[in-house]
Amino acid sequence: MYELHIANKNYSSWSLRPWVLLRGLGIPFDEKLVPFLGGVGANWDAFRAFSPTGKVPCLRDGDTVVWDSLAIAEYVAEHDPGTWPADAQARAWARCAAAEMHSGFPALRSTCTMNCGVRVRIDAPGEALRKDVARIDELWNEGLARFGGPFLAGKAFTAVDAFYAPVAFRIQSYGLQLGNAAMAYAQRLLDLPAMREWYAAALAETWRDPEHEDEAHRAGAWLQDLRAS
Amino acid sequence: MYELHIANKNYSSWSLRPWVLLRGLGIPFDEKLVPFLGGVGANWDAFRAFSPTGKVPCLRDGDTVVWDSLAIAEYVAEHDPGTWPADAQARAWARCAAAEMHSGFPALRSTCTMNCGVRVRIDAPGEALRKDVARIDELWNEGLARFGGPFLAGKAFTAVDAFYAPVAFRIQSYGLQLGNAAMAYAQRLLDLPAMREWYAAALAETWRDPEHEDEAHRAGAWLQDLRAS
Ligand SMILES: N[C@@H](CCC(=O)N[C@@H](CS)C(=O)NCC(=O)O)C(=O)O
Ligand SMILES: N[C@@H](CCC(=O)N[C@@H](CS)C(=O)NCC(=O)O)C(=O)O
Repeated sequence: MYELHIANKNYSSWSLRPWVLLRGLGIPFDEKLVPFLGGVGANWDAFRAFSPTGKVPCLRDGDTVVWDSLAIAEYVAEHDPGTWPADAQARAWARCAAAEMHSGFPALRSTCTMNCGVRVRIDAPGEALRKDVARIDELWNEGLARFGGPFLAGKAFTAVDAFYAPVAFRIQSYGLQLGNAAMAYAQRLLDLPAMREWYAAALAETWRDPEHEDEAHRAGAWLQDLRAS
Repeated sequence: MYELHIANKNYSSWSLRPWVLLRGLGIPFDEKLVPFLGGVGANWDAFRAFSPTGKVPCLRDGDTVVWDSLAIAEYVAEHDPGTWPADAQARAWARCAAAEMHSGFPALRSTCTMNCGVRVRIDAPGEALRKDVARIDELWNEGLARFGGPFLAGKAFTAVDAFYAPVAFRIQSYGLQLGNAAMAYAQRLLDLPAMREWYAAALAETWRDPEHEDEAHRAGAWLQDLRAS
């Protein structure tokens, strides 16, 4: 059975991706959650115990260690063909879109860090953030229109949806505005059983990581905190 | 036949990766080089003509557009099994290492931007750069020892070598010091026919992009410029 090492569900967007992929595909795994310790570099020792980069997520399959979210998707794909779309055109598109998220959207990722349980109002989004959000809107619209929905690359939930799953939480937390089709797709992601399970667990967490809290506070005016205290 | 859109060979590290992969595997392609225009955002319009992110590289195969280096590797892998190692353990490792480069090493990438034709001396490398270089050393040593060399994941040149190919030029340009095994591997990359072809073309370029030149100037003391004038 796979072992998936992750960090806090409330904060760890990279952990969410393979987690929701495996759950969405119905692949069983043992979850190993190690919470953030607070402070830049503070997790290094704890995370190096299971991951060579000192980062989460990390998948272990027997003695095979797979230490990056996109590499996990490709590893899982070798055993489960439902990981990527069956259609070759849709599959190429899905891999591009997932890779674009893997190395891109720096403003969205740094300004609107994932914090599932809070609600923040951004009064004056900077230009870089607006550009990232516009590109998400464009990309989602393209996928939904071209492959017919309801998921990004067609009828089935695949790895490309998993890669954009954290964006759905960001839209919810920071009140980001996209077009109708994109907003409906984000809601569809939030309504998935796997996403609801993650969200409930995130709200129930009582760990607070100062760094991640500060990031969300810097983003705008704090409206609500729905987490357990 | 594939069409591969790239930018200046002297500067564009992301372009080098799929280019050297295709050349190394002996896969024919049409090269479409569009030089950088200078200035942040200045390339957007020019690059958007062929790539939805306004970035290079971008592969076109008939009407299929593959707009990211790692997605290009996976696309090529569907048609050419030599793209990744044949052994499953080596393949999982290679994909992790390639993905780690795809989203990581920010200090190495921003402090030592690829500039094939210059030689720069870095007198006081910052801690972030030293950590990135140490991780490269560790990763390369692991691959070479575990899979027996001479390439990172075994006997054959595969996509993971292509992903680290720009690091070989950076080591050469900025005089970075790694351990013996890693230095020998970097030299092995530089000696590949495909890398020599790229390097010669980079030196012959007469375009100078102010942004990229400034980056290399900021890195340290300028020792030599081997480019055509
Ligand atoms: N490229 C990696 C990114 C992983 C990543 O950055 N993970 C974050 C948490 S979401 C991390 O572990 N950071 C280490 C830390 O905060 O100390 C992947 O795709 O898996
Ligand atoms: N994640 C992309 C990164 C591509 C990238 O950043 N390319 C740079 C050149 S090396 C670029 O086109 N930048 C646009 C610009 O400088 O305007 C990939 O792996 O292909």
